[in-house]
Amino acid sequence: MGTNGKVIKCKAAIAWEAGKPLCIEEVEVAPPKAHEIRIQIIAISVCHTDTHPIDPKSEETFLPVILGHEAAGIVESVGPGVTNFKPGDKVIPLYMPQCRKCKFCLSPFTNLCEKLNLDKSPVVDQELMEDKTSRFTCKGKSIYHFMGISAFSQYTVVSDKNLAKIDDDANLERVCLLGCGFSTGYGAALNNAKVTPGSTCAIFGLGGVGLSAITGCKVAGASRIIAIDINSEKFTKAKALGATDCLNPRDLDKPVQKVIIEMTKGGVDFALDCAGGSETMRAALDCTKVGGGSCTFIGVAVGDKGLTISPLELIMGRTINGTTFGGWKGVDSVPKLVTDYKNKKFDLDVLVTHTLPFDKINEAFDLMHQGKR
Amino acid sequence: MGTNGKVIKCKAAIAWEAGKPLCIEEVEVAPPKAHEIRIQIIAISVCHTDTHPIDPKSEETFLPVILGHEAAGIVESVGPGVTNFKPGDKVIPLYMPQCRKCKFCLSPFTNLCEKLNLDKSPVVDQELMEDKTSRFTCKGKSIYHFMGISAFSQYTVVSDKNLAKIDDDANLERVCLLGCGFSTGYGAALNNAKVTPGSTCAIFGLGGVGLSAITGCKVAGASRIIAIDINSEKFTKAKALGATDCLNPRDLDKPVQKVIIEMTKGGVDFALDCAGGSETMRAALDCTKVGGGSCTFIGVAVGDKGLTISPLELIMGRTINGTTFGGWKGVDSVPKLVTDYKNKKFDLDVLVTHTLPFDKINEAFDLMHQGKR
Ligand SMILES: NC(=O)c1ccc[n+]([C@@H]2O[C@H](COP(=O)([O-])OP(=O)(O)OC[C@H]3O[C@@H](n4cnc5c(N)ncnc54)[C@H](O)[C@@H]3O)[C@@H](O)[C@H]2O)c1
Ligand SMILES: NC(=O)c1ccc[n+]([C@@H]2O[C@H](COP(=O)([O-])OP(=O)(O)OC[C@H]3O[C@@H](n4cnc5c(N)ncnc54)[C@H](O)[C@@H]3O)[C@@H](O)[C@H]2O)c1
Ligand SMILES: [Zn+2]
Ligand SMILES: [Zn+2]
Ligand SMILES: [Zn+2]
Ligand SMILES: [Zn+2]
Repeated sequence: MGTNGKVIKCKAAIAWEAGKPLCIEEVEVAPPKAHEIRIQIIAISVCHTDTHPIDPKSEETFLPVILGHEAAGIVESVGPGVTNFKPGDKVIPLYMPQCRKCKFCLSPFTNLCEKLNLDKSPVVDQELMEDKTSRFTCKGKSIYHFMGISAFSQYTVVSDKNLAKIDDDANLERVCLLGCGFSTGYGAALNNAKVTPGSTCAIFGLGGVGLSAITGCKVAGASRIIAIDINSEKFTKAKALGATDCLNPRDLDKPVQKVIIEMTKGGVDFALDCAGGSETMRAALDCTKVGGGSCTFIGVAVGDKGLTISPLELIMGRTINGTTFGGWKGVDSVPKLVTDYKNKKFDLDVLVTHTLPFDKINEAFDLMHQGKR
Repeated sequence: MGTNGKVIKCKAAIAWEAGKPLCIEEVEVAPPKAHEIRIQIIAISVCHTDTHPIDPKSEETFLPVILGHEAAGIVESVGPGVTNFKPGDKVIPLYMPQCRKCKFCLSPFTNLCEKLNLDKSPVVDQELMEDKTSRFTCKGKSIYHFMGISAFSQYTVVSDKNLAKIDDDANLERVCLLGCGFSTGYGAALNNAKVTPGSTCAIFGLGGVGLSAITGCKVAGASRIIAIDINSEKFTKAKALGATDCLNPRDLDKPVQKVIIEMTKGGVDFALDCAGGSETMRAALDCTKVGGGSCTFIGVAVGDKGLTISPLELIMGRTINGTTFGGWKGVDSVPKLVTDYKNKKFDLDVLVTHTLPFDKINEAFDLMHQGKR
């Protein structure tokens, strides 16, 4: 049972203040309580959502906090009542819980779970454990969790509903990407947009999520994939993954949606906004064809004013939807995605831009903000 | 071939100016050109969309015009090249053409047709025939068509793509409602929202469209149908058609969406806005459950500012779509709907509030504006 029952002292990156770099500190990680699991985090990656709580534009925030939600690790110890995990198991923490019992978990049409705080927005924050307390202490202060995961710590504690057990031979440095970005973009194309063979798709924003959406479109059999980013450096990878056309709105002399409508003679079948914010939401909806086109929102821009729509934009036959975590029910699906990766159904290597030691986490954030992730 | 080749003089209601009553005038109706059909209009009904071109808030308009798009009639004569219709046929004019050849007509996912002017909004206006001329003259002036139909005339000319041949024994006074309102609301529930058995639905606005949406939900097997109108007089019919709960937002001490969320413990599976405007669009989206709820826009309010949405409202698993003419491909489907009516699959009688002679068309408009239709 490892060091069950004992507090672990380890390093973690703490966000003390909005708009400031994270600080590497020594933290105390309490042992897991009932239905909780303490994990040694082996690999992490950064996702844009990690910047939300420390974005000065955020309306509601909770500080100090340990961020991080894209990770893979090994079970260190388990609390009372945990039956599906044992020390040594390879695992991926899930920010979307799956209790398997609530009305959402029992519905095939959603990956929500009542364990989320559905009265609060964003519902995925999960800044405290289910008993409304934290397992982290630093300098005598209680530290908030983030998205039920807090992966920017050498050890963390998660609920047994927020954890997927994966194959023993999984490459944790790679499959950590299944904890958010890859699964989100890939699933958005497959499960939410439900991209069809032979279709035309437009992907706005080519970060980890957008590149993975390209992979999803490709796997679904799309015949044309138009990739859009304001940073042209992203186009090499986009093409490697299957993009057939790349557009930088800053290099065009008319709005990107007009160019896409012309290129496709009337618009795309599927548009996916993997950037976030009213500008790309507008472009994504505009470039979606009337008469059956579908537009999926994935990106979220903090403090954005949103998209204003007229019913006339929809009554001619368009659908708008959105996704969290690509529609996957994590406990069930993430282990299968790990197997699919092993069987080379898709590639994760190309998504990795930099590999940095844990102490360099602020450099990772800086690279993401510069769009170099 | 009837009076083919000759101009017909008859009565029509002309809208000369926005914001003014229609004027009953003598008009000249030219003979049908190639692929056109001249129809004697036997029964009409009024739909809120008829008020759009004469609404002083309309941005683009075309006047003078003969309005009207919900009708049934009898073929008087046919132009060259018409093969599917002959004088004496009972018909329902269609504002959504179906050419059966274009990419939209060949797709099972939409009821659009390239014969619409897709570069213009609203695309359904069809204020001139395909050769860009009008068949109506009054006092020496050319008069615009409306929605390819112009039913507020004793005779009108339509394209053979905008016409459905129906059973010889059809009751034209009733099935004229299949030309817009009934088919729209009924199809919105069945074809667009795709209401499922056992589901909970909310219908905003109980005019002809909303009442027909209730019928659609009922036929689809919904187990709870919440009907909302600011005019409580509509509730008797709503209940007769299958509404299980009726709410008047003006009688409530909190927003109607909050009341619905409480009544349904988290929101409805399907919300349909059959009123139009940002207020009901907002309420409809808000009362749609997270994790799989669907919101369908049908109503259109002239000059409305639209609905502003945040991606967070969608990424928790909601879908927004819209419909024109309930998703039906008219040439194929309207004859089947006429048969379904004959077989008592649904009731149209309850939708009829007043039966007026043609000269009293302004009274019909006034009744609609007072919400008494
Ligand atoms: N819904 C979910 O479940 C979910 C999950 C993960 C991430 N997200 C969100 O998805 C978005 C993408 O995440 P990421 O980790 O890939 O971010 P990222 O920062 O790595 O990538 C975003 C990309 O969008 C590009 N971009 C920015 N503005 C643009 C514009 N106007 N036009 C075109 N491209 C533009 C940037 O250059 C960058 O390449 C973020 O908003 C994130 O919060 C949502
Ligand atoms: N998309 C399409 O294909 C299509 C087809 C036909 C009609 N329409 C549109 O659908 C709408 C309804 O048409 P109709 O002929 O039934 O109109 P109608 O005027 O007969 O009925 C509208 C109803 O909405 C109610 N209403 C108005 N504001 C409301 C509010 N804030 N909350 C609740 N109820 C409210 C009114 O009291 C009325 O009963 C119109 O906007 C019309 O233009 C669209
Ligand atoms: Zn993420
Ligand atoms: Zn659950
Ligand atoms: Zn067509
Ligand atoms: Zn109508």
